[in-house]
Amino acid sequence: MSDEQVVYTLEPDEEIKAWYNVVADLPTPPPPALHPGTKQPAGPDDLAPLFPMDLIMQEVSQERYIEIPEEVLDVYRQYRPSPLYRARNWEKKLGTPARIYVKYEGVSPAGSHKVNTAVPQVYYNKKSGITRLTTETGAGQWGTALAYACALFGVTCEVWQVGASFDAKPQRRVLMEVFGAKVHRSPSRLTNAGRAFPEDHPGSLGIAISEAVEVAAPDPGAKYALGSVLNHVLLHQTVIGQETLLQLAKAGEGAPDVVIGCAGGGSNFAGLAFPFLREKLVHGTKTRLVAVEPTSCPTLTRGEYRYDFGDTACTTPLFKMYTLGHDFVPSPIHAGGLRYHGMAPLVSHVLHEGLMEAVALHQNECFEAGVEFARTQGIVPAPESSHALAQARREALAAKESGEEKVIVVGLSGHGLLEISAYEQFLAGKLTDDPLSESALTAALAGVPEV
Amino acid sequence: MSDEQVVYTLEPDEEIKAWYNVVADLPTPPPPALHPGTKQPAGPDDLAPLFPMDLIMQEVSQERYIEIPEEVLDVYRQYRPSPLYRARNWEKKLGTPARIYVKYEGVSPAGSHKVNTAVPQVYYNKKSGITRLTTETGAGQWGTALAYACALFGVTCEVWQVGASFDAKPQRRVLMEVFGAKVHRSPSRLTNAGRAFPEDHPGSLGIAISEAVEVAAPDPGAKYALGSVLNHVLLHQTVIGQETLLQLAKAGEGAPDVVIGCAGGGSNFAGLAFPFLREKLVHGTKTRLVAVEPTSCPTLTRGEYRYDFGDTACTTPLFKMYTLGHDFVPSPIHAGGLRYHGMAPLVSHVLHEGLMEAVALHQNECFEAGVEFARTQGIVPAPESSHALAQARREALAAKESGEEKVIVVGLSGHGLLEISAYEQFLAGKLTDDPLSESALTAALAGVPEV
Repeated sequence: MSDEQVVYTLEPDEEIKAWYNVVADLPTPPPPALHPGTKQPAGPDDLAPLFPMDLIMQEVSQERYIEIPEEVLDVYRQYRPSPLYRARNWEKKLGTPARIYVKYEGVSPAGSHKVNTAVPQVYYNKKSGITRLTTETGAGQWGTALAYACALFGVTCEVWQVGASFDAKPQRRVLMEVFGAKVHRSPSRLTNAGRAFPEDHPGSLGIAISEAVEVAAPDPGAKYALGSVLNHVLLHQTVIGQETLLQLAKAGEGAPDVVIGCAGGGSNFAGLAFPFLREKLVHGTKTRLVAVEPTSCPTLTRGEYRYDFGDTACTTPLFKMYTLGHDFVPSPIHAGGLRYHGMAPLVSHVLHEGLMEAVALHQNECFEAGVEFARTQGIVPAPESSHALAQARREALAAKESGEEKVIVVGLSGHGLLEISAYEQFLAGKLTDDPLSESALTAALAGVPEV
Repeated sequence: MSDEQVVYTLEPDEEIKAWYNVVADLPTPPPPALHPGTKQPAGPDDLAPLFPMDLIMQEVSQERYIEIPEEVLDVYRQYRPSPLYRARNWEKKLGTPARIYVKYEGVSPAGSHKVNTAVPQVYYNKKSGITRLTTETGAGQWGTALAYACALFGVTCEVWQVGASFDAKPQRRVLMEVFGAKVHRSPSRLTNAGRAFPEDHPGSLGIAISEAVEVAAPDPGAKYALGSVLNHVLLHQTVIGQETLLQLAKAGEGAPDVVIGCAGGGSNFAGLAFPFLREKLVHGTKTRLVAVEPTSCPTLTRGEYRYDFGDTACTTPLFKMYTLGHDFVPSPIHAGGLRYHGMAPLVSHVLHEGLMEAVALHQNECFEAGVEFARTQGIVPAPESSHALAQARREALAAKESGEEKVIVVGLSGHGLLEISAYEQFLAGKLTDDPLSESALTAALAGVPEV
């Protein structure tokens, strides 16, 4: 291969045909979810009102690999394998001896990694006779992905979009509508959970989840779909990391020094990092796994590892996770996908076991990295993804300082073409950083239930 | 290969390493450009104030293939080969026996085919010592592409954006700014050509070209770059059609029945179609080549084949082309890239020789096809590209009627993620069609000079 190769792809016979379940390889089992009433471990039946049984069985599976259905592979083949780029222009600009590899999920129909789980979720729901799906969306990427998958399989899609995001980027709403979805601003007047807040409230993922759950639960033809946090969602995203491992090998690289992903609910990070975690656990590689979050919603770096609800209305099971408290409402930053009060239980467990790291960054540093990346590599990153790039930049500059030929893998979870107004504000110097205050953190954590 | 394959790509050793110059294969030579003062054939020296000599030599070249510089290939490799998709979901939705192949240029850094020529144009300018480039942009795709290419090569970029487009989609302007360009609304107050019009005028490509040319011409460190129309621009785009030929062969197809592209200035259409025209001229294939334009700017279908200026201020050479008159200002439709008063001289010549066809479509039919395509294939097309899709839909439905297993190739020149407000208006039923009236046509043509 040429020394100047920049894109690494895979042959058709290298297609990833199974999702990877990290639970099978973890040294200790993750704590179970608890029923919100009895506080006893929740069983598959407790989840049945919300999810089809195929997804529930994936949620509780101990199997290492779960076969991807042919119908799902058919859709994956439209945009997978996603490219792995060697960011040569950016490396030059940074003057770093590090080799930076970028796994880019923005090539998917909805422009982000979310399609990887939207497609199987809609597929399994459709297979079980469901005709309507409800969901929440923060930045809008998940709603877009579910809208597209629903259009493909002929399922009605209804989305509660977090108010701050709904107001800031009407283009996201329109894109969901182009794909045929019905979109509500959350908090809406359509649910008890929504009506508990004033109509002009900026909203939160916790509120939007409560609304979507409230609407789906009583309708026998409807189910709810979640874009992150749950085990089965993380599972579906592992196509990302599995492909990256194969692509890195084609680039002639061994185990990378560090793998970086942004983390809101945790599925993007897990999808990239868990296959590398397997390499650590099974083959003893030394790769560092780093999750990046915003300082305004520092779940992993300042939250507590406790049982908490997944939503604001306390209707979901209790999950053991890093949490800022289920009624925490972060300031409306532009990386709307990184504003969840909790973190995927699996990612939380892995962090708690000391198998990964987490770092919180200010949004101005992230946009700065995003603009630099756009000007060198030609891709405008989603504000969420710019968090991962900012950390990669730190690692690359540290390598420059130390003279190390470090290998950095960074997940670029999506493009920011529908978040361009955020870049406008950044370029105009109008973005502020709003780190979570101690008092706000204490107040929010006070709402976490005793278990 | 699988019967279900949807994406066709190429191996590294199948890389396109030369641009194809259709002039070498045409049965009759295209008429020369004329000097605007002397009305004599314009020589390379007449173009020297605007373009570097490498590009001028390509403009007048008779060579069949022109080698692509390694520095340009390096950038192409970031996004080329662009994918050829078999649009299986759309075929099913249409119930057509036709096989529809979509060549998708939206994977490029700027989201359209324009990067294919922006990169070599900036490269040759930089090589000749130029440090500043000026240009016009209609829909914004060309300005975005040039801004990116300038960022890569460290050249200052200044863009005059057609007023109607500047007002309708601020996101496009911001994207150019993210890539480091300075953007002006045209008509601006910075040039004589701009000051000839009221400040709130919707603008036109003709006016914006005049402005960019006026600023570049007197500055020895500056040149002007054009995003379509000229021979060298069409030449650079032929990587599209050359790749498509190889990809179709991988799909097991022979010569397609029809190749369809939208045409504004003509470079997108030519880039896809000219390599297929070579197959017709040299190997006698029967492929129909169809250019699609809007009814509001029907250059090929209702313009006259005459010598006319490329810009409103009459500063460019005279080109023999289909024209609606250089002072024609089309209604501000959403497909801003299809609002040029003229058509590439090479495309005009090929149409006049009877080697291709042209059709004009209303914008509502185009957006309808665009939404249908998004819901089935997951890609929101640029409003320009939706014109080609609408014609492909007509061909596919005709095949359904006749029961023919037609092979349709359609160029999807870019995505419409920054034109999403146009889709919003379409979904709300607010788009009107504004075909050019007979009286407006007559008035516009009265301005074409006698040569």
